[in-house]
Amino acid sequence: MPSKDIEAESTRKWNAVAKPLNGLGELEHLITRIAMIRGTTDFQLSKRALGIMISDNGIVEEGVSQSKSDVTLAVANLMADDLSSVGKMIKDVDTFPIDIGIKDGTPGGKVIHEKIREGSRNFMKEPAQTQEETLRAIEVGINLIKRLSEEGYDIVATGEMGIGNTTTSSTILAEMLRLPVPELTGKGAGLSDEGYAYKCNVIERALSKYDMNGMILSLYSDLAKEMPDTFTGSVPDIGLMKRLHAFLALSTFGGYDISGLAGVFIGGSMYHIPIVIDGVISATAAYIAEQILPGTKEYMLPSHLGSEPAMQHIYDEMNLTQRPVICAGLHLGEGTGAVMLFPLLDMAKSLYDGTKFLDTDIEPYKEL
Amino acid sequence: MPSKDIEAESTRKWNAVAKPLNGLGELEHLITRIAMIRGTTDFQLSKRALGIMISDNGIVEEGVSQSKSDVTLAVANLMADDLSSVGKMIKDVDTFPIDIGIKDGTPGGKVIHEKIREGSRNFMKEPAQTQEETLRAIEVGINLIKRLSEEGYDIVATGEMGIGNTTTSSTILAEMLRLPVPELTGKGAGLSDEGYAYKCNVIERALSKYDMNGMILSLYSDLAKEMPDTFTGSVPDIGLMKRLHAFLALSTFGGYDISGLAGVFIGGSMYHIPIVIDGVISATAAYIAEQILPGTKEYMLPSHLGSEPAMQHIYDEMNLTQRPVICAGLHLGEGTGAVMLFPLLDMAKSLYDGTKFLDTDIEPYKEL
Repeated sequence: MPSKDIEAESTRKWNAVAKPLNGLGELEHLITRIAMIRGTTDFQLSKRALGIMISDNGIVEEGVSQSKSDVTLAVANLMADDLSSVGKMIKDVDTFPIDIGIKDGTPGGKVIHEKIREGSRNFMKEPAQTQEETLRAIEVGINLIKRLSEEGYDIVATGEMGIGNTTTSSTILAEMLRLPVPELTGKGAGLSDEGYAYKCNVIERALSKYDMNGMILSLYSDLAKEMPDTFTGSVPDIGLMKRLHAFLALSTFGGYDISGLAGVFIGGSMYHIPIVIDGVISATAAYIAEQILPGTKEYMLPSHLGSEPAMQHIYDEMNLTQRPVICAGLHLGEGTGAVMLFPLLDMAKSLYDGTKFLDTDIEPYKEL
Repeated sequence: MPSKDIEAESTRKWNAVAKPLNGLGELEHLITRIAMIRGTTDFQLSKRALGIMISDNGIVEEGVSQSKSDVTLAVANLMADDLSSVGKMIKDVDTFPIDIGIKDGTPGGKVIHEKIREGSRNFMKEPAQTQEETLRAIEVGINLIKRLSEEGYDIVATGEMGIGNTTTSSTILAEMLRLPVPELTGKGAGLSDEGYAYKCNVIERALSKYDMNGMILSLYSDLAKEMPDTFTGSVPDIGLMKRLHAFLALSTFGGYDISGLAGVFIGGSMYHIPIVIDGVISATAAYIAEQILPGTKEYMLPSHLGSEPAMQHIYDEMNLTQRPVICAGLHLGEGTGAVMLFPLLDMAKSLYDGTKFLDTDIEPYKEL
């Protein structure tokens, strides 16, 4: 767990800076959170990565998106040479696009090959992923962070590309949060009002197709048979059942991109790397990661609020110590919102490392 | 007025970029607003300035602030060498700190000397500024933008330093918006609950001291005498009275910093330079500028929402086409929040000037 001692040390460091107490608001807390994760107030932020999980989604067959799946490959081909939107926007961020499930081909260039399958299945007909695939996809994310940690990266932003992945996100969230589908569903990359109503209807019908309680109990008893030593009590382990619920919601409705991103967040907690949450797809992965492995959220940094209505609910539900600092109605994807946090963190960090009251004639502010 | 034709051209340019329509949300609108102000979609953003108005406020005598006035000079002395908070945070932004009313001395270095008076008066006893001083302070702001325009600056952020200037801002706003004082008042750079209640009480008592309606009528009839040709109708000019109200609220309760910043915003509209609004003090100046010279707001860009409760009310009242994109509870001052908009604009502009659908295999999104 991130260190409470470092938190206190970091707050003292902030309060020694010649400025009003907490003058940079949430940005001060984000810097302190990074210090806690890195275990030092003397951390670096200069080596930064963006991990982009790219995958297709079988649910697109149901017509929930304005675009067809081939757009996923086309954008991935641009990412191969850093020519997609996010590639145009960033400097000093290394991108790691990963083909974790593109349907219509395999991009070249810098794209990393970790394809689990040529697109997830249509969850209106069958579960999107097998449980074994979900575990493998999570491992892809964990291994990315292992590699980036070994290569000395200080911070990692999350991004994704995959036509249909606002639908998979909303379905996972509706399953987990038990809120009305329209409250958790937006227009994605662009739907008409009619298309939006249809998308909500597809999600509602899909949710009703699965006996999730039965699936949880079945997986639970399978685990009890496999690991009898850890299931000794006579009372069912409700906490474990909740964790299995999250895993099954991810596996049943999610794409390989969301599974891979959940692994990235889990990797952050394992290798003590701050992971920046992007928009609704990334935030869904973050939420699921925290449900599967409670405590993972301590290693996450929010960036922006996006425009999908689910974002507010996810942040309410996760109860992170920080809230998103960018509120610009972004909905581009690819991690474009997450990387916007970097220059803000840079500015805050310059101040954190900068002029102290001691170096000036100014009396420090008091906490009142 | 900013060009509607350019607005349409800019929207077409955005929609040709290979990304979901309006994917960068408010940042797309901000870029389009800049294009409208500059009269071209092919504008530059590389030469950027931060104008900082520095002034003391007589109301500090009443004990409304944790700090004493000498902090204003101390911070101004740091600004003289770009060693204050904002100086630490920025690269590629030229700062123009202006001593428009420091009480306890005159800083050297790069600080520009435009001192109107050694601090404004204590408005609990008498109007903070004479009307003539207010006009001169506004002119300082206009002249700064004239100079920056001649020197080829593309965009100007606003900042301020002046102990007591959240009190002057809240008083101006309470006079203009007619909302309860606590709704428009925050804890500034740091007050206890008791100090906050006292600050609200000082503002309420100050407001009740002045017969603002009488002052408006008196100024109106003075103007009618001076310029009889423009006051020919028998019906009083209500629009002019509202403009005089804003001017008198500024003059009676405001500091020279706020008057100077109002001039900066007016200068933006005169020289077609986008001016970035910072926190509550800058936003108060922006609001007053729009009231004094309607249409000025078309040349303003919001940046962040700050932490003072008045900000939301000012933005509701001004009805700008854009909303702040940074929501981080910033309250440092010096323009630190305004300059945070620059890297976000840079990233958005890189995309605006970047890959078009035409250069890819991707079919453009449709507006539905």
